[in-house]
Amino acid sequence: MQSSIQDYMQTLGKHAKAAAQFLAAASTKTKNDALLAIHEALIAQKDQILAANAVDMNNGRANQLDAALLDRLELNAARFDGMLQGLKDVIGLKDPIGEITDMSYRPSGIQLGKMRVPLGVVGMIYESRPNVTLEAASLALKSGNAIILRGGSEALASNQALAQAIQTALQQIDFPAAAVQVVATTDRAAVGELITLTDYVDVIIPRGGKGLIQRISNDARIPVIKHLDGNCHVFVDAEADFTKALPIAVNAKTHRYGVCNAMETLLVDQAIAATFLPKVAPYYLEKQVELRGCEKTQAILGQNVIAATEEDWGTEYLAPILAIKVVDDMNHAIQHINHYGSHHTDAIVTENFSKVQRFLACVDSSSVIINASTRFADGFEYGLGAEIGISTDKIHARGPVGLEGLTSQKWIVFGHGEIRQ
Amino acid sequence: MQSSIQDYMQTLGKHAKAAAQFLAAASTKTKNDALLAIHEALIAQKDQILAANAVDMNNGRANQLDAALLDRLELNAARFDGMLQGLKDVIGLKDPIGEITDMSYRPSGIQLGKMRVPLGVVGMIYESRPNVTLEAASLALKSGNAIILRGGSEALASNQALAQAIQTALQQIDFPAAAVQVVATTDRAAVGELITLTDYVDVIIPRGGKGLIQRISNDARIPVIKHLDGNCHVFVDAEADFTKALPIAVNAKTHRYGVCNAMETLLVDQAIAATFLPKVAPYYLEKQVELRGCEKTQAILGQNVIAATEEDWGTEYLAPILAIKVVDDMNHAIQHINHYGSHHTDAIVTENFSKVQRFLACVDSSSVIINASTRFADGFEYGLGAEIGISTDKIHARGPVGLEGLTSQKWIVFGHGEIRQ
Repeated sequence: MQSSIQDYMQTLGKHAKAAAQFLAAASTKTKNDALLAIHEALIAQKDQILAANAVDMNNGRANQLDAALLDRLELNAARFDGMLQGLKDVIGLKDPIGEITDMSYRPSGIQLGKMRVPLGVVGMIYESRPNVTLEAASLALKSGNAIILRGGSEALASNQALAQAIQTALQQIDFPAAAVQVVATTDRAAVGELITLTDYVDVIIPRGGKGLIQRISNDARIPVIKHLDGNCHVFVDAEADFTKALPIAVNAKTHRYGVCNAMETLLVDQAIAATFLPKVAPYYLEKQVELRGCEKTQAILGQNVIAATEEDWGTEYLAPILAIKVVDDMNHAIQHINHYGSHHTDAIVTENFSKVQRFLACVDSSSVIINASTRFADGFEYGLGAEIGISTDKIHARGPVGLEGLTSQKWIVFGHGEIRQ
Repeated sequence: MQSSIQDYMQTLGKHAKAAAQFLAAASTKTKNDALLAIHEALIAQKDQILAANAVDMNNGRANQLDAALLDRLELNAARFDGMLQGLKDVIGLKDPIGEITDMSYRPSGIQLGKMRVPLGVVGMIYESRPNVTLEAASLALKSGNAIILRGGSEALASNQALAQAIQTALQQIDFPAAAVQVVATTDRAAVGELITLTDYVDVIIPRGGKGLIQRISNDARIPVIKHLDGNCHVFVDAEADFTKALPIAVNAKTHRYGVCNAMETLLVDQAIAATFLPKVAPYYLEKQVELRGCEKTQAILGQNVIAATEEDWGTEYLAPILAIKVVDDMNHAIQHINHYGSHHTDAIVTENFSKVQRFLACVDSSSVIINASTRFADGFEYGLGAEIGISTDKIHARGPVGLEGLTSQKWIVFGHGEIRQ
């Protein structure tokens, strides 16, 4: 079985690479036509897709999947319409491919510049949401990449039905169907093969829990655009304007709890802790946010705060829990953020220009925010049109990743017969 | 021993990371002052450094290293001066750090843009040339990165002497000495540790033979900027101007043989093969370049050509040997290049604009060259000022990599108290 899985994945890889060569030179119109054909095929096959999803849902209930997982797995009519709208949105996005920049003459006479091109073949590994299948496929196609999709086993029927619609659409318009391939086995060995297909796959994008992503990063032999955790901070400086600091500190924690750009630790300068903390705490308590503070925080807020442990500073709660620490000054805050944070998104509230300069330079995070909520660190808020993921890596793509994250730039040289002297 | 190597490398990593935090906010002047101090320390310690190199050379001769390796190992007075000049050149380079681009307002009111920042800690693994120690150290410092250097065991004394000079210089000006650390053991386990120091090291740059680089890429748990082979092509199209095609085909092969951007296979459109090949062949034969051709090439050039095998198409000779293939047309040439090439540098010679468009879009190489020699694919010819390496990856840095390859861009947000609605 192992060797047949290997052969199967090699075949997917080979076909994807061939499709990628077609896609690299496909015009924007050709790619949009393919996306439109998929849009129509999805409408035509809606009943089959929802029926396949019902099979997954029944199996999920029989296998006693938890409620959150079942919710992510479900494709109802509203979500189906959302998927269709998402596809339309991708059609409307500017095609990043073919952009030529920085063309200039070199002393040798050659004209040198850069051209934006697709990465080639993307391998996507994700958990239960079937809508990711369509989202990833459409972003890959738009950016001229072939994609191999490996969804969760609990969504197999849904993903196969979506794949069926996509394949039908592509075949109808003579577009290489291997541009989008869905792995048709739930054998876990397929993931191991996919992330080591160095001859065929150019980048791996995992989406899911931290455990999955860590495992894939460790085992992959192909570059991985990964998103680990979001342990985000807001630092309220001694020179903060409280009319900004208060709404930001409340919004960053309580706007949504289960998101990676929510604040998990509030840092407060000791100079204003005794005035600021009593102002902000009632907002948290009103929303039943559990407060876990350092000793100084406890001294100021009293019994509303339980003692924070070392572990709290490194935890992404994704829940109505907030750690609070009083720090000596901004440098102490920066040290804390760089040590305990996850290099995702961190904010300062201050009116002091020089502190802003230092915070920007020293905080080693993919988004550094001045006087605004951490919740803005998001592909849609950043105007990327679509978000493939949020990268916590520093290499290639960092922070919210849009279509451009699926592209690369190659050097191009226009000569007139020049040779090296 | 294994565990003490692990502890040792962890300590280097920890110190490097601390130094990187200082470097991230260091001004251009501070960094240039450090480079100047190193320049002076090298002059002051020249005798010790050359003496240490003599020890390495003697050991190398005793261990019967081959002549090419001994040549790379040697630091004579001229090379020492070259090293000093290289350092001056890096001081003169524009500091890439702190560049802020693309600032614009979003509908939410926040002002969003990107800021160029150092990667953090660079791990460099290289073979015998001791001048790489200084080159890599100076480029890392200039771009605000700390670096851990692991040179070849045959250059240990030279590298330790260089490290001594660098450390002395940095300590004298109160610059964190851990900004540049040279691994002081030849134990190979140190490499295995370095490439898995995920908590401390942000990128690994290997320089050396293909075997070394492949091994490091396979075992690393940290992103690798790697340069594998350069199997470069020149395609002479049916619509080529021979006054350009002839010098380019000759220069790309014979300007230098042992370099990664030398042409290894010449592709010729069948429509002009019978006229072009007899014109170009004498230049190769005069320089004693061995010609290995397909059947059609042999039919045209006769006994001057030996039969090429399948293996020839995939080989980077780095020698006065050239493979020649007659192809049906440009699409055939593109297929050949993408299949057998190494995605490094490939050129077309043609006067046809539409073919240029297609060649640019379809050839999946880090440099795609029109009507010029492949030999231009080089950091200095591209005006990068310095070259850290040539990447054959598509992720992060592609093709010749300058200082910018050691940087990353983070998102920055300037708000006025905005919160997410």
